[in-house]
Amino acid sequence: MRALVVDSGKLSLRDEPTPTASAGEVLIKVSLAGICATDLEILKGYGGFKGILGHEFVGVVTIGPDALINKRVVGEINCVCGRCDMCTSGLSSHCRRRTVLGIQGRPGVFAEFVTLPERNCHLVPDGVTDAEAVFTEPLAAAYQVLRQIKLETKTSIAVIGTGRLGLLVAQVLAQFPCRLTAVGRNPRTLDLLDRKRIRTSNVTEFSHWGEQDVVIECTGSPEGLPLAMRMVRPKGTIILKTTCATPTPADLTPLVVNEISLLGSRCGPFSDALGALARKQVDVQSMISKQMPLSEGVAAMSLAADPNHIKILLACNT
Amino acid sequence: MRALVVDSGKLSLRDEPTPTASAGEVLIKVSLAGICATDLEILKGYGGFKGILGHEFVGVVTIGPDALINKRVVGEINCVCGRCDMCTSGLSSHCRRRTVLGIQGRPGVFAEFVTLPERNCHLVPDGVTDAEAVFTEPLAAAYQVLRQIKLETKTSIAVIGTGRLGLLVAQVLAQFPCRLTAVGRNPRTLDLLDRKRIRTSNVTEFSHWGEQDVVIECTGSPEGLPLAMRMVRPKGTIILKTTCATPTPADLTPLVVNEISLLGSRCGPFSDALGALARKQVDVQSMISKQMPLSEGVAAMSLAADPNHIKILLACNT
Repeated sequence: MRALVVDSGKLSLRDEPTPTASAGEVLIKVSLAGICATDLEILKGYGGFKGILGHEFVGVVTIGPDALINKRVVGEINCVCGRCDMCTSGLSSHCRRRTVLGIQGRPGVFAEFVTLPERNCHLVPDGVTDAEAVFTEPLAAAYQVLRQIKLETKTSIAVIGTGRLGLLVAQVLAQFPCRLTAVGRNPRTLDLLDRKRIRTSNVTEFSHWGEQDVVIECTGSPEGLPLAMRMVRPKGTIILKTTCATPTPADLTPLVVNEISLLGSRCGPFSDALGALARKQVDVQSMISKQMPLSEGVAAMSLAADPNHIKILLACNT
Repeated sequence: MRALVVDSGKLSLRDEPTPTASAGEVLIKVSLAGICATDLEILKGYGGFKGILGHEFVGVVTIGPDALINKRVVGEINCVCGRCDMCTSGLSSHCRRRTVLGIQGRPGVFAEFVTLPERNCHLVPDGVTDAEAVFTEPLAAAYQVLRQIKLETKTSIAVIGTGRLGLLVAQVLAQFPCRLTAVGRNPRTLDLLDRKRIRTSNVTEFSHWGEQDVVIECTGSPEGLPLAMRMVRPKGTIILKTTCATPTPADLTPLVVNEISLLGSRCGPFSDALGALARKQVDVQSMISKQMPLSEGVAAMSLAADPNHIKILLACNT
């Protein structure tokens, strides 16, 4: 099968053997895959991953149990042992022996086929298109924010970064009564939120420094955290979403002096995301800049790194 | 009066005018003052403070209301406006217009006299000696930890750094049933905790990496946070106490990937600290390495920077 492989910072389209589903696993024919910031960071060296890239997808089960066969599925990315201290204490997404789809020790979805444990699969509701379903994983990560903060009408909350993840987080929060501002640099994506009647501010015009109860850092840049520390009020909360390939100098003094809570945030609840897509509560369609065939995957990754594009999708079986 | 003044990284003993208490303030004759890591960082440039250094003290009120006159007091270090959004929302220690004793915009206690708002003063209980009372401020900062975490019998908790603050935090936590380990490098201070039957580990022999529910970072060093991130379990909590003069590269990726909560922690409840000192629940006496007169303040600061010493006290009116 064709697959997009990363090896020591180089990306190439290769012929790879079609994978075989082990016991408890299903074989999935990948319909669409999404390119995300983590993929771009992995290409820069983040995590030292080598192999087939990609972890956001929707596909059809071709080998698996009756309940899943020929069904459209999306899949949780952490493949876990079920026996370690994390798994047995309800924290299986932090399994000590986990592999992570296209990120750590497991081939990803920028390929014609992929295998995944059966228990990782979620059926896609009929009313959700493939192009929508491919956003389930990042949208779940956006919904995770709701599990980390207490949201009240009076809560002032800034989402910084209006890239792929920031656009989702802002839309999730906009469903709830709170004082939300999406802060970014890119007029194009700010405008996209404006049209959804979400209050936005260009970072150069932001004026409520040191006043936000909560700041959700979705910039994908090492500059995000210092910015978040300037925005949040004393005793406020920052949710940190960005992982970068390169460690950068960060002066965490404001965190101590202002007694800020900094909460790391990674994956989230697929059920919340699929429910929101089915109820059309979050618009992902307007985030799709381009759909390209897997054969053009190398070019697609370059496009995804260009801030003039938001989401690039790969059609993996065209 | 004599005072120890910091100016652009230089420390000197000077003659300064004795301060005058404004409305709502008291004049305090400083009996003893304590040298802490923050004083040493300020000398290195932290916060850009210029003026009389020092914020840990016990003294006697010489000008003030009847209830305080001739009484022994300790004092909270944040002097607040009472009117800003922080003050009116119960977060007065984060007052937008605050001055901080010997740290920010207000002369400190390494002097014969100091002024402080009356409401900042706490009477020292009779059973508490001056040498004990001078630990109230750092002990309050140690007690703050209890307000930031939920402590259960099964909670595994590591205090890293067995310097001035770490020794206090370890003693505070040791009063409660939990799985506590104090982790440090200094055999002398580790031994001090061993003798109190607190479990200790030299960091070179520590083996429970990635397993601690809570890590309290009291190292006073930029190396503390990376160490804490290696010690804490996924979804665990780090309380960050260290403020350093120099920002240093920190790779916060583990925070995101392992969804760790990092909580900044600064001041704490004086009432808890004074209560513990009165009930002899925390031994501070064994932490005093030396008491020196204010006239030897410059030498005392050098001694305080030497890891062979723990707490250096200054007798300010001898």
